[in-house]
Amino acid sequence: MTELVSSGYKGRARELLEQGGATVGSLVKVKGVDGAETSGLVVPRYEHADPEHVVLKLKSGYNIGISVENIQSISVVEKSPTVSTFGQVSAILQQAHGRPKGKTSDKKLLLISTGGTIASRVDYRTGAVHPALSAEDLYSAVPELGDLAEILPEVVFSVYSENLTPSDWQTLSNSILAKSRELEQKKKGRADGVVVMLGTDTLAYVSAALSFSLNGFDLPVVCVGAQRSSDRPSSDAALNLKAAARFAVSSGTEGVFVAMHESENDDVIAIHSGVRVRKNHTSRRDAFESIDVSYEAHVIGNEIKMRAQDVIPVGDSSTKSEADLAERFRLKTSFNPSVALIKFHPGFDPMVLDYYTRRDKPVKGFVIEGTGLGHVSSATVREIGRLSKEGVFIGITSQCIWGHVHLDVYETGRDLIEAGAVPLENMLAETAFAKLSWALGNFEPEQVKEVMLTDIAGEFTQRIALVGRRNS
Amino acid sequence: MTELVSSGYKGRARELLEQGGATVGSLVKVKGVDGAETSGLVVPRYEHADPEHVVLKLKSGYNIGISVENIQSISVVEKSPTVSTFGQVSAILQQAHGRPKGKTSDKKLLLISTGGTIASRVDYRTGAVHPALSAEDLYSAVPELGDLAEILPEVVFSVYSENLTPSDWQTLSNSILAKSRELEQKKKGRADGVVVMLGTDTLAYVSAALSFSLNGFDLPVVCVGAQRSSDRPSSDAALNLKAAARFAVSSGTEGVFVAMHESENDDVIAIHSGVRVRKNHTSRRDAFESIDVSYEAHVIGNEIKMRAQDVIPVGDSSTKSEADLAERFRLKTSFNPSVALIKFHPGFDPMVLDYYTRRDKPVKGFVIEGTGLGHVSSATVREIGRLSKEGVFIGITSQCIWGHVHLDVYETGRDLIEAGAVPLENMLAETAFAKLSWALGNFEPEQVKEVMLTDIAGEFTQRIALVGRRNS
Repeated sequence: MTELVSSGYKGRARELLEQGGATVGSLVKVKGVDGAETSGLVVPRYEHADPEHVVLKLKSGYNIGISVENIQSISVVEKSPTVSTFGQVSAILQQAHGRPKGKTSDKKLLLISTGGTIASRVDYRTGAVHPALSAEDLYSAVPELGDLAEILPEVVFSVYSENLTPSDWQTLSNSILAKSRELEQKKKGRADGVVVMLGTDTLAYVSAALSFSLNGFDLPVVCVGAQRSSDRPSSDAALNLKAAARFAVSSGTEGVFVAMHESENDDVIAIHSGVRVRKNHTSRRDAFESIDVSYEAHVIGNEIKMRAQDVIPVGDSSTKSEADLAERFRLKTSFNPSVALIKFHPGFDPMVLDYYTRRDKPVKGFVIEGTGLGHVSSATVREIGRLSKEGVFIGITSQCIWGHVHLDVYETGRDLIEAGAVPLENMLAETAFAKLSWALGNFEPEQVKEVMLTDIAGEFTQRIALVGRRNS
Repeated sequence: MTELVSSGYKGRARELLEQGGATVGSLVKVKGVDGAETSGLVVPRYEHADPEHVVLKLKSGYNIGISVENIQSISVVEKSPTVSTFGQVSAILQQAHGRPKGKTSDKKLLLISTGGTIASRVDYRTGAVHPALSAEDLYSAVPELGDLAEILPEVVFSVYSENLTPSDWQTLSNSILAKSRELEQKKKGRADGVVVMLGTDTLAYVSAALSFSLNGFDLPVVCVGAQRSSDRPSSDAALNLKAAARFAVSSGTEGVFVAMHESENDDVIAIHSGVRVRKNHTSRRDAFESIDVSYEAHVIGNEIKMRAQDVIPVGDSSTKSEADLAERFRLKTSFNPSVALIKFHPGFDPMVLDYYTRRDKPVKGFVIEGTGLGHVSSATVREIGRLSKEGVFIGITSQCIWGHVHLDVYETGRDLIEAGAVPLENMLAETAFAKLSWALGNFEPEQVKEVMLTDIAGEFTQRIALVGRRNS
């Protein structure tokens, strides 16, 4: 029964499963103490191991947890296959969801793999997840992708996303452009869209980075990840990937997006703006949320529903011609690694900023997550003043996540402005960090402030009125 | 018309107000292009200055923004009083809300002031907000407090909350205990509860700190703030304060809580656990949210509605007698300032940790906000391993905000555990930081890990099942 242990079941839940001869992947019937019966696939429990629930994946795609207190008995309807290869679990998934009908499409999709959960597999000996599958493996495991488009797979990295650096963002940007050009040169025809498979941990940082480096690229780029490993029955990998592919080849948009589950259910995938999205939960499938704005679109089955526009991006762009902007910020793919993201906290030591600017490769710019409207302590204001005079860029965001910084309300804010700090409106801290690395990578130091305050990819949203709502 | 300018009105909104002879604080009637009429007090617009809306406070307490496009004309029903003193604005507020009837209570409330917006006033020359009002001023300005309890005011600091340090948390803790004892010794009778007025910027850090330092204190302590300065008609100060006072003297609970608006409206004030609350919006009145749990109670007018318990705190406490725990962690009020809170980001420089441990007053413990389930780069794992061997405590939380860290799912997590990092379940990063400062202030280094993993004030919540919901 090693399989049950490594799958997170213990205590009473494990006993009940063992009594019924069920293992992970078994199709079971659970009889409740009230006589009610529920059927579903037994799902592994790595991430939320409490001994009080048995979790089933229902035919509808929903996962439900049934309290052991309410279970009379468990019986196996269909034995688990040996769940050891991705393809087999994919087969289970298809069995649960039904295989969509469709004909082979004449669209072309560039599918980039970088590692992360979506391209991971579980080591059933330890229960741990390793980055392993290539884009090709995943394609062969989710054959419905072939109904959507001809898949042109490309492996750029195979690493966990927490190890990706700004230099890797540059490599990734250049790979996407190079691969896309190569297709055209080889007369294989143009791709209709790009999907980038990423680890969810830093997916929002990468989607922000690509939003700037691929500004002006004429294909939609959809970043996608999975919160549950691809070879587990509860995985969101296949659905997210199919929705990302569909949006990439059929939406007719440009820009960088993120495709992830809209809720814990399997029915709607949300398409977020690459610069306004954040991972707000460690483990839920609907961990990603658009901040201060709504999602961009929903993918529901075969359908793409674009959101009605209700938020107008603002920024310097209104005062310049679109063409000038487009040219100036077009396909600049360099990132400068000499940047740091700092979260202010009570008792924060401002000499940390000094350390950063004196190290071997001195930091040229900071994004600071202040408190509330963007505040830091008086001692930190003084250090910011000193560094700002030395030409170091200091952008201010808020650790509140939602809402705009405003440095004109309180004395502290006014002192910060005086010291040379640059309030970054409601740009997300992670987006601001990626943008600063890009700005320092492609522009002269004296241009950085202006670049940071120019709306390039929708990173600023209209100020929300007193009566404004949070994102829906 | 200086007043309109400093109050944030400009463009067409300002023109319309000027044409009608209205100023901030005027009771006006707005005639819409459709002929509809709306009456309300003109509210200042410091924080969200866009020229497209006139904002009125309705008699119901709601603020509404009316688009200038929909306004035909504005006429003054009642001139603004000279809005220069807090008492006068309070009078306007009372006029808008009606004065509650009631008799003087025999309850006693210890009202602690530390500065922050709730005890601030606007400089009408610059539009900026200064910490100024004392607890006594505020009491005299919100006389309904007298209907709830006899108020015993105490000023501990008068600073913006971003300047409060862990040492100040210690002073605050000791002041609350000393003042409470002093009352008893002077035979003035015991206080029934304590309200601490704080700046909202670091309010959640302070409420967490007090939750540990005042563990075992037999009075409820309610931290309260305001998102809008007390002398502005749109202020939430009076309502938050009244609800905090009501909960402090009448709920019959113990523990540390936070009282803030539940929504943008003025009808419900939420009472949050001091260790599970976060400021999630820079400017909204309902900026504070309970994370991974529900609010503790609602205060609706004169009524306190406790929440039905649906989340059971877990932790070591279940394996020890309540009495032992209570004694061991009782009223330990020291905080060690040698702690740091670090947000990991792509390309994070692990030598920052080294800097902290080599500075004049070396850091003894870190709380790191990892990505996703609590991950950091491989280079950072190595540095954590080195520091951990030197006896430095390294606790892992997640920058996702919601959800639990889990270091047993991916290789990186397992490496972190191996390196000596301590996963802190779903403790909020800010709470973990305050707790670490407290743990290092009151216990031996070798006890810190165990203290950090013991549930003392409800800082851990039951693991949320796969089917669990986010906080409601």
